[in-house]
Amino acid sequence: MKSLLGGKGANLAEMTYIGLPVPPGLTITTEACINYFAADKELPQGLEEQIWTKLQDIEEKTGKKFGDKKNPLLVSVRSGSVVSMPGMMDTILNLGLNDQTVKGVAENTGNERFALDCYRRFIQMYSDVVMGVQHYEFETILEKHKEKAAVKNDHELSIEALKNIIIEYKVIVKRISGQEFPQEPTDQLILAIKSVFDSWDNPRAHVYRQINKIPYDLGTAVNVQSMVFGNMGNSSGTGVAFTRNPSNGNKELYGEYLINAQGEDVVAGIRTPQPINQLQQDLPNIFAQFIQVANLLEAHYRDMQDIEFTIENEKLYLLQTRNGKRTTASAIKIAVEMVDEGVISKEEAILRIDPNQLDQLLHSSIDPNAKLNVVAKGLPASPGAASGKVIFDANEAEALRKDGKDVLLVRTETTPDDIHGIVAARGILTSRGGMTSHAAVVARGMGKPCVCGCEELKIDYVEQKVTIGPHVIKKGEVLSIDGSTGRVILGEVPLVDPELSPSFQRLLVWADEIKAMSVRANADNPEDSQKAREFGAQGIGLCRTEHMFMAQDRLPIVQEMILAEDLEEREKALEKLLPVQENDFYGILKAMEGFPVTIRLLDPPLHEFLPNSEELVIEIMELQHKGADLKKIKEKKVLLQKVKALNEANPMLGHRGCRLGISHPEIYKMQARAIFQATVRLVREGYNVYPEVEIPLIIDANELKVLRQDVDETAKKVKEETNLEFEYTVGTMIELPRACVTAVEIAKHADFFSFGTNDLTQTTLGFSRDDAEGKFLQDYLEKKILKDNPFVVLDRDGVGKLIEVAVNGGRSEKSDLLIGICGEHGGEPSSIEFCHLRGLDFVSCSPYRVPIARLASAKAQVAYPRS
Amino acid sequence: MKSLLGGKGANLAEMTYIGLPVPPGLTITTEACINYFAADKELPQGLEEQIWTKLQDIEEKTGKKFGDKKNPLLVSVRSGSVVSMPGMMDTILNLGLNDQTVKGVAENTGNERFALDCYRRFIQMYSDVVMGVQHYEFETILEKHKEKAAVKNDHELSIEALKNIIIEYKVIVKRISGQEFPQEPTDQLILAIKSVFDSWDNPRAHVYRQINKIPYDLGTAVNVQSMVFGNMGNSSGTGVAFTRNPSNGNKELYGEYLINAQGEDVVAGIRTPQPINQLQQDLPNIFAQFIQVANLLEAHYRDMQDIEFTIENEKLYLLQTRNGKRTTASAIKIAVEMVDEGVISKEEAILRIDPNQLDQLLHSSIDPNAKLNVVAKGLPASPGAASGKVIFDANEAEALRKDGKDVLLVRTETTPDDIHGIVAARGILTSRGGMTSHAAVVARGMGKPCVCGCEELKIDYVEQKVTIGPHVIKKGEVLSIDGSTGRVILGEVPLVDPELSPSFQRLLVWADEIKAMSVRANADNPEDSQKAREFGAQGIGLCRTEHMFMAQDRLPIVQEMILAEDLEEREKALEKLLPVQENDFYGILKAMEGFPVTIRLLDPPLHEFLPNSEELVIEIMELQHKGADLKKIKEKKVLLQKVKALNEANPMLGHRGCRLGISHPEIYKMQARAIFQATVRLVREGYNVYPEVEIPLIIDANELKVLRQDVDETAKKVKEETNLEFEYTVGTMIELPRACVTAVEIAKHADFFSFGTNDLTQTTLGFSRDDAEGKFLQDYLEKKILKDNPFVVLDRDGVGKLIEVAVNGGRSEKSDLLIGICGEHGGEPSSIEFCHLRGLDFVSCSPYRVPIARLASAKAQVAYPRS
Repeated sequence: MKSLLGGKGANLAEMTYIGLPVPPGLTITTEACINYFAADKELPQGLEEQIWTKLQDIEEKTGKKFGDKKNPLLVSVRSGSVVSMPGMMDTILNLGLNDQTVKGVAENTGNERFALDCYRRFIQMYSDVVMGVQHYEFETILEKHKEKAAVKNDHELSIEALKNIIIEYKVIVKRISGQEFPQEPTDQLILAIKSVFDSWDNPRAHVYRQINKIPYDLGTAVNVQSMVFGNMGNSSGTGVAFTRNPSNGNKELYGEYLINAQGEDVVAGIRTPQPINQLQQDLPNIFAQFIQVANLLEAHYRDMQDIEFTIENEKLYLLQTRNGKRTTASAIKIAVEMVDEGVISKEEAILRIDPNQLDQLLHSSIDPNAKLNVVAKGLPASPGAASGKVIFDANEAEALRKDGKDVLLVRTETTPDDIHGIVAARGILTSRGGMTSHAAVVARGMGKPCVCGCEELKIDYVEQKVTIGPHVIKKGEVLSIDGSTGRVILGEVPLVDPELSPSFQRLLVWADEIKAMSVRANADNPEDSQKAREFGAQGIGLCRTEHMFMAQDRLPIVQEMILAEDLEEREKALEKLLPVQENDFYGILKAMEGFPVTIRLLDPPLHEFLPNSEELVIEIMELQHKGADLKKIKEKKVLLQKVKALNEANPMLGHRGCRLGISHPEIYKMQARAIFQATVRLVREGYNVYPEVEIPLIIDANELKVLRQDVDETAKKVKEETNLEFEYTVGTMIELPRACVTAVEIAKHADFFSFGTNDLTQTTLGFSRDDAEGKFLQDYLEKKILKDNPFVVLDRDGVGKLIEVAVNGGRSEKSDLLIGICGEHGGEPSSIEFCHLRGLDFVSCSPYRVPIARLASAKAQVAYPRS
Repeated sequence: MKSLLGGKGANLAEMTYIGLPVPPGLTITTEACINYFAADKELPQGLEEQIWTKLQDIEEKTGKKFGDKKNPLLVSVRSGSVVSMPGMMDTILNLGLNDQTVKGVAENTGNERFALDCYRRFIQMYSDVVMGVQHYEFETILEKHKEKAAVKNDHELSIEALKNIIIEYKVIVKRISGQEFPQEPTDQLILAIKSVFDSWDNPRAHVYRQINKIPYDLGTAVNVQSMVFGNMGNSSGTGVAFTRNPSNGNKELYGEYLINAQGEDVVAGIRTPQPINQLQQDLPNIFAQFIQVANLLEAHYRDMQDIEFTIENEKLYLLQTRNGKRTTASAIKIAVEMVDEGVISKEEAILRIDPNQLDQLLHSSIDPNAKLNVVAKGLPASPGAASGKVIFDANEAEALRKDGKDVLLVRTETTPDDIHGIVAARGILTSRGGMTSHAAVVARGMGKPCVCGCEELKIDYVEQKVTIGPHVIKKGEVLSIDGSTGRVILGEVPLVDPELSPSFQRLLVWADEIKAMSVRANADNPEDSQKAREFGAQGIGLCRTEHMFMAQDRLPIVQEMILAEDLEEREKALEKLLPVQENDFYGILKAMEGFPVTIRLLDPPLHEFLPNSEELVIEIMELQHKGADLKKIKEKKVLLQKVKALNEANPMLGHRGCRLGISHPEIYKMQARAIFQATVRLVREGYNVYPEVEIPLIIDANELKVLRQDVDETAKKVKEETNLEFEYTVGTMIELPRACVTAVEIAKHADFFSFGTNDLTQTTLGFSRDDAEGKFLQDYLEKKILKDNPFVVLDRDGVGKLIEVAVNGGRSEKSDLLIGICGEHGGEPSSIEFCHLRGLDFVSCSPYRVPIARLASAKAQVAYPRS
């Protein structure tokens, strides 16, 4: 009944029900709260009567009477929302006290100081919450009296002092609120309940709900509970404890308490609380009882509990229990151990871990306790943190790395020429380019931290310095980046290493047993493939051959191929590339032995391999002004002409993907041959390899038909030449809307589909990722026009609809068509769930996200079992 | 049975059936042809026997015998495809002649010269078609003998000469083909039939089919028909006649004939044929009979006929009749007059006009008889032809135009700064940019001829000349362009003015009565709106406000707005634009009084209004090298920085459309205010105006919800300020795939949808139009991967599917949602048919295509009536 009673109310009822010592109380439902707001802040009819009836029950159970001068019942009034919103809403303690009842309490407890202290606290809290008199008004008075009395702690104040404080409190309340402090306990209670309801609507609650995506219309419940007092002397106290250690997951009671204190004192930090085990010395019986209760609660709720308790005169009361917050690492450990203890099933263990939070375990991160001097913010292009000497040149980065130095490569943007510098650097920082810029894509593939498009950076290559606002960082000085958040930090920062604990490993093995989809990795070289295997990848879902083209030693040949004047010249260049590519594929297929490897044929537009047009223009002008050799100028001009001829207004929608294969079949044929020749070598060496040739950017069945023919013919030739049989399949990326709506036809020529959701998102929404992110997409998220960044979380309503059309189309033609996803969404949990729901066979993501995908995939299967 | 017998065979059978004098014959079906190719060029089993049986019928009817020495039957063998392919395939006459039967013919006719002439012609034709001996081999021999005999015409050759020619013919046949000329008539016939089948596969037939979109698998029929002879003396002859004048449509017999000649002589042009009316003098009986037959055939086929006839010894034979080809102008006249004559209905008249061909009637074109020196070819960006002095500068163009000179504006590309030059020029020619470049879009809007992206042009602004291959054209010299074909022509060319004949006007009025969709125009100013009205537009479907922004006097204010440092500065610039825009809308709404006007709020990315980055870089470098004023350099550098910050990797998918409205609501609010203030002025002046405010580039209902609110609030304010009620609607362009799949939601906030199929095609296919056309799209069309250019003919399988989804979605939410199309497809007949089929309410196109759209829309309704 959590949605009606709120989390706290439901738990209190539950604890009472299983016989635990909970102070008697009543809960006003969330429904009443919703009606309260609907009725313009009027309490629902009949509610007050119900409260008084229930209050009588409490009076009976406690033997006290609300408002009674002799033996008054005091209550707490607390909010209790459905989803925990710690500290966000208001609480009032000691309600029921007034100038009369305070005397009754004093007499009853034989402790006037205690009674006055309670009254003082009550006035302070109540006036703050209900009457709008701010906290500091009271603190000022209190501090004044403590100074006057020359004492440090509240409980050292004399009775006289407390009495004066109370008088002054009431004066200030009257002055600020214009009203007397209410003496009638029933008025106190009704106004307090209304105020707790109102606190659901306060600004910080709004912000919290927004951040945590909690709907407004849930409302909050209100818990009215008889008070117990931890501040009644040295056999009283109050504390908070976790049933297991929330930071490392160890199975041990973890918490703290204060003797002779009320709950707020623990939080306030004025007195230092004792660790919970100390209670064994202080109050051994209570400690023993508490251990019992803790075990009972954990067993009952089948999860680690966060318990609030109070000891009143050597009697233990439980004020609250809830599932304890914990770090991801300890969440994993606790879940796995609870499976071992037979408390929960493997499926439940998997449901308890949020895959989104695994990222922090897979990359080094900045020590959360470190003080940071954040000077700029860019795009979080590749997760992980890094510190290093600022270096502006790839060669220099490489040289320094060889000397064992940590380097941070800082560039306006990177190009294929910088690859060796990226390899050498600890991290990459650029001032231009988005989440799909060269630096971002390469860094993610390598699992290297990267912050991109940090426009506050003014890089001066000539002076070898970078200016960030008022800061000037010269070459060799240290900067740090946090690729998970985009932060750029001055100086070195302490890093925390990633950890793949044994528990984590076991959890992932269970995930593999459960999940319905296989998890592959996107990898372009043997090293990444090896890493992917270690992270549990069951194959490669996307091997981008263009990354091989960009390697520094190959780029000149690639450029030769592009600038070829005729077919013959082009084929000559391709012949030089053939053995190089063959070796690439040999290495990757070998590293993924036993698993399928999807190799995508060349995808980017050819001009990506050529120099930038504007830079060439500048170069030529400079050569001219220097009066350089005319022949050299001419050469550059010819190159410029070629570059301009290949330049495109919208390269994303230009001459790329299979369009290159249609215009220049010789390129794809060379790549197919390289794949098959590598396959032959491996088969001869006794390896089991499964190459899957993937044609990108298909929009029509005819394209695939024609290009598949080229691939099949090449395979046939290689088989004849080598007199060896081998297996392969041919399929396509589905990454344009037209491919989705014509999937039935395309499937006729495809052995598999793989959704390229990066491009599919770009075209479905008409969003160029490079132009949207960090620019207008920000406005869209801030103004809540889109709920999530569609490049991070798959857009189910738009892109998802098209995927559904494509899956249905493809499977209607071939019921067993292999279908996967290889866009970056393949490593994002909500998107993985969607893929599971749509019946995909595999997801593929960067090696470092493979564990996340394994868990997310298992989670989807547990939540929505696929037969 | 046209698809089985071919056009010619079916018509011959039909004419025989209605009792007209047709020489007896037989037809071999297209099915036989298809089987022939399927069986690797083997005639279907049983076919030969069937031929011999049918041949006996012919022998009986003619009293002659195939291969008989005394009274031989001669036949013609002709192709007859389902769709007419004039002159594309082969024909053989006089088959059945050999060294023996030629004597029989000579004896029977008492005309040895005639018999020998037939034999000579037969050898020549047969050897050419069947044996691969080319025509000119025989012509050489013939010419030699004519020279020797000193005669001009074939029929002046002596019998002896003809005998020698025949001997030499046979020698050359043997020498070249390696085989004797076949003497056996049955062999001759079978080989001839095979050759006619084969001619279906010859290269020129392939090309013709490609151009005319005739499917290959139709196959051709073969007609074997007994010969009649027009070359048997002066009471014989042959001719061709149309039942109406095919060039102007007048109702008069039109054609020509030759006395004593066979069909080929008429075509060969060696003797000048007589006009058909001359036949009344030559053979009055035959003429009278022919007139009767012509009337009968036209009445029977209910269309103008193209009749081939032969007169053999004063007996008229009909060899063929078919619907006559005609110019578009005459087609219209004939159709309209046939309605008046009660022969066909208005609906049939509409079905007979191909809307695709109306274009030539709506723009001036090059005189089809002119000799042209075509020196280059660019993209046919805006139809019509123009000649003018080559001018490279807009100001100069304007000045010359004021002096009454015809100017052709030649630029690498045009920018908003050139608008006055474009207005002044007769036509525009650019060396860069595609079908959607600035020059193309502006020229189409103005109905001005334009050829774009003509890369062969090397323009030298400094020397003021343009080089095209070997030709150098200096400023002031004359060039011509044909914007309908992309041709660039040296010198001036004779032009033919467009003509909107009374028949055309009447046809369009009928079309309006019939069609189910209304036709609107895309127009951005009062002049175009006026023109659109004259062409019959029923409103404006797309008014692009950015074209107003680009006018020379406004650009500085627009730039001020874009470069504004803060909101205040931007609003100041917008305030200056407000009255200007108000006047724009005032003029357009007034010109379209009584009809709806869809006004699209600002759509292009802001950087389109700023200078080009590369040009700025060059300018800055030049300033630096010149040692110019540092302040000026600094200014330019700041501008460059701003330009670079706004530059986008893929502007098509960038910060444009309603994304501008989301980021800068003040821009759309200013535009909405301008629309409503103009509306108020017009309402006060007594005009009926219907503004429709259109939000572009929507991908999500939330965008429209937010932006519609801004528009509605602005309307409310203007109503309050002016104390005047007015009507308006708010809707959206549907131009991205996501808008299509989320149309149900979007419709909740929209009064209308208008498909922007240009952008929808770009994103659905992932084709940037600028990059695709004239580049890789060419490969796609040549390799038949796509059937049509998707930017010209709406892609039904891809884009069409998404349109269907959007229409269904939108109408499921609002059954009466107004839906139209305003991309360029709105003026293309096949796309208009699709819009009709999908239930759209209107199409909108450039003013000059409105008549085409009216007709195409009516045609769609006749073919697929919508209730």
